[in-house]
Amino acid sequence: MKTGFIGLGKMGAGMASRLCQAGYDLSVYNRSAERLQPLIAQGAKAATTIAEVCDADVVFTMLANDTALSEVALGPSGILEHLKPGAIHVSCSTVSVALSAQLAHAHAEKQQGFIAAPVFGRPDAAAAGKLFMVASGKPELITKIQPLLDILGQRTFIVSDDPEKANLVKLSGNFLIATVIESLGEAMALVEKGGVDRHQYLDLLTSSLFNIPLYKNYGAMIADRHFEPAGFAAHLGQKDMRLVLAAAEELKVPLPFASILRDRFLKLMAHGGDHLDWSAVGSLAAKDAGIISS
Amino acid sequence: MKTGFIGLGKMGAGMASRLCQAGYDLSVYNRSAERLQPLIAQGAKAATTIAEVCDADVVFTMLANDTALSEVALGPSGILEHLKPGAIHVSCSTVSVALSAQLAHAHAEKQQGFIAAPVFGRPDAAAAGKLFMVASGKPELITKIQPLLDILGQRTFIVSDDPEKANLVKLSGNFLIATVIESLGEAMALVEKGGVDRHQYLDLLTSSLFNIPLYKNYGAMIADRHFEPAGFAAHLGQKDMRLVLAAAEELKVPLPFASILRDRFLKLMAHGGDHLDWSAVGSLAAKDAGIISS
Amino acid sequence: MKTGFIGLGKMGAGMASRLCQAGYDLSVYNRSAERLQPLIAQGAKAATTIAEVCDADVVFTMLANDTALSEVALGPSGILEHLKPGAIHVSCSTVSVALSAQLAHAHAEKQQGFIAAPVFGRPDAAAAGKLFMVASGKPELITKIQPLLDILGQRTFIVSDDPEKANLVKLSGNFLIATVIESLGEAMALVEKGGVDRHQYLDLLTSSLFNIPLYKNYGAMIADRHFEPAGFAAHLGQKDMRLVLAAAEELKVPLPFASILRDRFLKLMAHGGDHLDWSAVGSLAAKDAGIISS
Amino acid sequence: MKTGFIGLGKMGAGMASRLCQAGYDLSVYNRSAERLQPLIAQGAKAATTIAEVCDADVVFTMLANDTALSEVALGPSGILEHLKPGAIHVSCSTVSVALSAQLAHAHAEKQQGFIAAPVFGRPDAAAAGKLFMVASGKPELITKIQPLLDILGQRTFIVSDDPEKANLVKLSGNFLIATVIESLGEAMALVEKGGVDRHQYLDLLTSSLFNIPLYKNYGAMIADRHFEPAGFAAHLGQKDMRLVLAAAEELKVPLPFASILRDRFLKLMAHGGDHLDWSAVGSLAAKDAGIISS
Repeated sequence: MKTGFIGLGKMGAGMASRLCQAGYDLSVYNRSAERLQPLIAQGAKAATTIAEVCDADVVFTMLANDTALSEVALGPSGILEHLKPGAIHVSCSTVSVALSAQLAHAHAEKQQGFIAAPVFGRPDAAAAGKLFMVASGKPELITKIQPLLDILGQRTFIVSDDPEKANLVKLSGNFLIATVIESLGEAMALVEKGGVDRHQYLDLLTSSLFNIPLYKNYGAMIADRHFEPAGFAAHLGQKDMRLVLAAAEELKVPLPFASILRDRFLKLMAHGGDHLDWSAVGSLAAKDAGIISS
Repeated sequence: MKTGFIGLGKMGAGMASRLCQAGYDLSVYNRSAERLQPLIAQGAKAATTIAEVCDADVVFTMLANDTALSEVALGPSGILEHLKPGAIHVSCSTVSVALSAQLAHAHAEKQQGFIAAPVFGRPDAAAAGKLFMVASGKPELITKIQPLLDILGQRTFIVSDDPEKANLVKLSGNFLIATVIESLGEAMALVEKGGVDRHQYLDLLTSSLFNIPLYKNYGAMIADRHFEPAGFAAHLGQKDMRLVLAAAEELKVPLPFASILRDRFLKLMAHGGDHLDWSAVGSLAAKDAGIISS
Repeated sequence: MKTGFIGLGKMGAGMASRLCQAGYDLSVYNRSAERLQPLIAQGAKAATTIAEVCDADVVFTMLANDTALSEVALGPSGILEHLKPGAIHVSCSTVSVALSAQLAHAHAEKQQGFIAAPVFGRPDAAAAGKLFMVASGKPELITKIQPLLDILGQRTFIVSDDPEKANLVKLSGNFLIATVIESLGEAMALVEKGGVDRHQYLDLLTSSLFNIPLYKNYGAMIADRHFEPAGFAAHLGQKDMRLVLAAAEELKVPLPFASILRDRFLKLMAHGGDHLDWSAVGSLAAKDAGIISS
Repeated sequence: MKTGFIGLGKMGAGMASRLCQAGYDLSVYNRSAERLQPLIAQGAKAATTIAEVCDADVVFTMLANDTALSEVALGPSGILEHLKPGAIHVSCSTVSVALSAQLAHAHAEKQQGFIAAPVFGRPDAAAAGKLFMVASGKPELITKIQPLLDILGQRTFIVSDDPEKANLVKLSGNFLIATVIESLGEAMALVEKGGVDRHQYLDLLTSSLFNIPLYKNYGAMIADRHFEPAGFAAHLGQKDMRLVLAAAEELKVPLPFASILRDRFLKLMAHGGDHLDWSAVGSLAAKDAGIISS
């Protein structure tokens, strides 16, 4: 089985590396070529065009946003143009429900397969094959790529036959993570201003009811007030809140927590925080409370 | 060591039972006497007045709200009046920061000890001694009652020398739990209206990033839309949001998520949901979205 | 008709002065005596105790908050104790619905009359007799004091036989004014960051759809970013949002805009803005947007 | 001066009629031809293509949303293609800031003039020439069309040389109107549940501080609970909140009130209220409070 991988950012690099290490015949493509080197060193072939990388049975994409995926997939000399009938595009990016539906439709017209398989996990989980994969698409296609998904993630959750539903689930998951960040930010601001040590408080929470890495890791970043370097940058978090709200608008689902998060991200970015880890949103309650200067 | 226990509701009954089973000399008091019987059967002595139950080294209170605790502690023939100098009042109720501070002051004037030791856990955890105890007060007093706390809970977190800080932590914890309920409610409404099965979705969440009983249990109640009988009634949740917001107001800490929760609880109660489990707040997003009729 | 007036703050001084100028026999009382002087100069009699000022047919109170009114009315040597049966207490303060109901009950038990008559208008309107009076209470009592209300205000709106309903209306009115402040703050932040002059924008608004002093005056303060001296201080605005929300909680009415205003006032006060005019809340959107530094 | 008008909905029909009555040589175009008749009766010429209506010195567009304007202006056989160099497109629709900027750029490349001139006012004001016109664009172009604007509106506010800023101002204005609707809805729900008659309450408000048609008219619709037929339909209001929030996102301006309004409109539409007047948003607080059934 020949595989291709487009998009070697923090997440994509680790994922492609997993496929390479598992012995797959892998071509890799990235807009800026300097990110190809580590993969080549592991045995991947460098593709200089999307056409080249599309000479494969399965092509993965892991890109930053709708614009990037749209260009790579639908643009001139993009995946749609070059993928063989019967070959499968596996889209792992966190993109809009609408774009995923559009890709599903476009690939189907070309007799190409399309799977949405967005992931949960940060770059270290990607490199270790410990992602959670959320997959949607035709069952027979998912079956075909399951061995690849098993290399990328610790578990695959199959959501639906409609690819875009995996994207909806992924976006809702990022929303849930963001609510954890905001909740911790508010709770810590409250107890700290009331005279309780915030690290001790976090220890209490995560030793009792909130005993999972999600609360521990984001809690630690908020308690330490240390948001650099970003594992997942604030501007990406802002994008995801936008996509969640766009999906919610399309479906007519009011989401008050998501609206608050939207404003939190906008505030963070209005004050120059684009590049910080998105958990920096968890520092805004303390700023509002005058605990730390804005 | 003679012990007393006032307040034999769902939580208090389990806690008193633990002390009894551990062999402590225990007097119990409850406003409505019919709840005494099960404890007497386990060997506790029935007290018919607060004065009687105060003839002890340590007296616990576990009451529904500020009004109840205030009457029992500060009212005529209350704990303040009857507790011996040197004896300790351990207040386990979820009450306001302000009342806890007032009690600390009042007991100190009478040379009585005062510990705030609110708990995390639902009635089954209380009965099993699996609560998490959050204790604040003078270290020497906490040391003295630690064996008792060890019988009631699986772990004690000592927060501060100031009793009321334990109450602040407890309230902030209930706020965090409520944010989990609301977050799940919003996320489930979104994906369900988008065509994803909500039970399958919950399984995905709790098998991956949100793998703790908190998300599993409340998630199941929301997915099942089954909110009776209440483990923790909505009107108590509403009270706690009020107390969190009151503490936040006193400290000047804006808490946008808490404000949304406040309105959620008010809406639930305006539609007759006082008696439902507080996780019923997690059904309101689905109602707003028109998924279930209001 | 003998009249008394308790509370000579910015509002009360102007109101008492109106009564004096109209020729009424007026005793005045204020906690800090130096504010009596201007009234004495106009012919009022200085009372040194509440008892003295209560030797009247009608006693007005205009005090800062629930605590002050409660002490003056219900405290030892307060109005309740000294007012003659048949005499009327006219409470003009912006206080809680609950306190007003409590006073109504307490006065009735003493055969004393009680009218709640909170007012709309700032100090200049008070001095000019241009207030809007919102009155509730027994019709025959309102009829009796109508001539006095006519001196204080340009118009009286009679709301109900239950005094506390006037307080509810007054609080809801302050809520509405606060929404105007916040709305203007948000809209101005948006257009200014988009490159539109905020003064020119305000002129457009108030020359077209929003052509009333409320929008003009608060809009000018927000556009000028000039919030001192306070006509109505932020800490009083914060108090009113608290009282609106308390009334809404009692009645189980979710009020999302009011919750946002609550947090706005808390933020303003957390950053030292207690003493500013409450329209300073209208500057927070510009701060969130990074237009002005926080 | 030859004029053209595209878009004969409730607003456009009234505006075109004004131009006709003023004696201008006017061609009119509408997607569904049956709306042309009343204008023809007044002397306008019916155009069957956009090309025809573009044979003019000034062409107005008044369309429902971005999609419609985009098709008419930028689509094949659209305005861009047919307008003569030097002729002016006056865009009166309430559309996104982004589309307006795009149109400004596209017209400039074709040496065509472009003015954004969105309006405030409902259909009756359009028919009576009583609109408020908000115009942006090159001063010499505005000067040229000023006589036409004077026929359409009671006053023109010139905002900027950049057309899209007029759209930002227009959207911000619709946001302000929507805040009035929501504020009144919340305040009326509160006082009504507290026992105050809502019509009497509205009269109090609009006879005192809120003495403008905006509060009177929308207040009456909310108090009457009568939202049909729609002067301005809820789905258009929802669109405008989306456009305000999109502009705010682009500019990084958090707008908490706008987010609440977004959710209000989504809720209204989730419950089938698309076709109601947008003031129906003002009934949602009463539904949340259980005053009226949802």
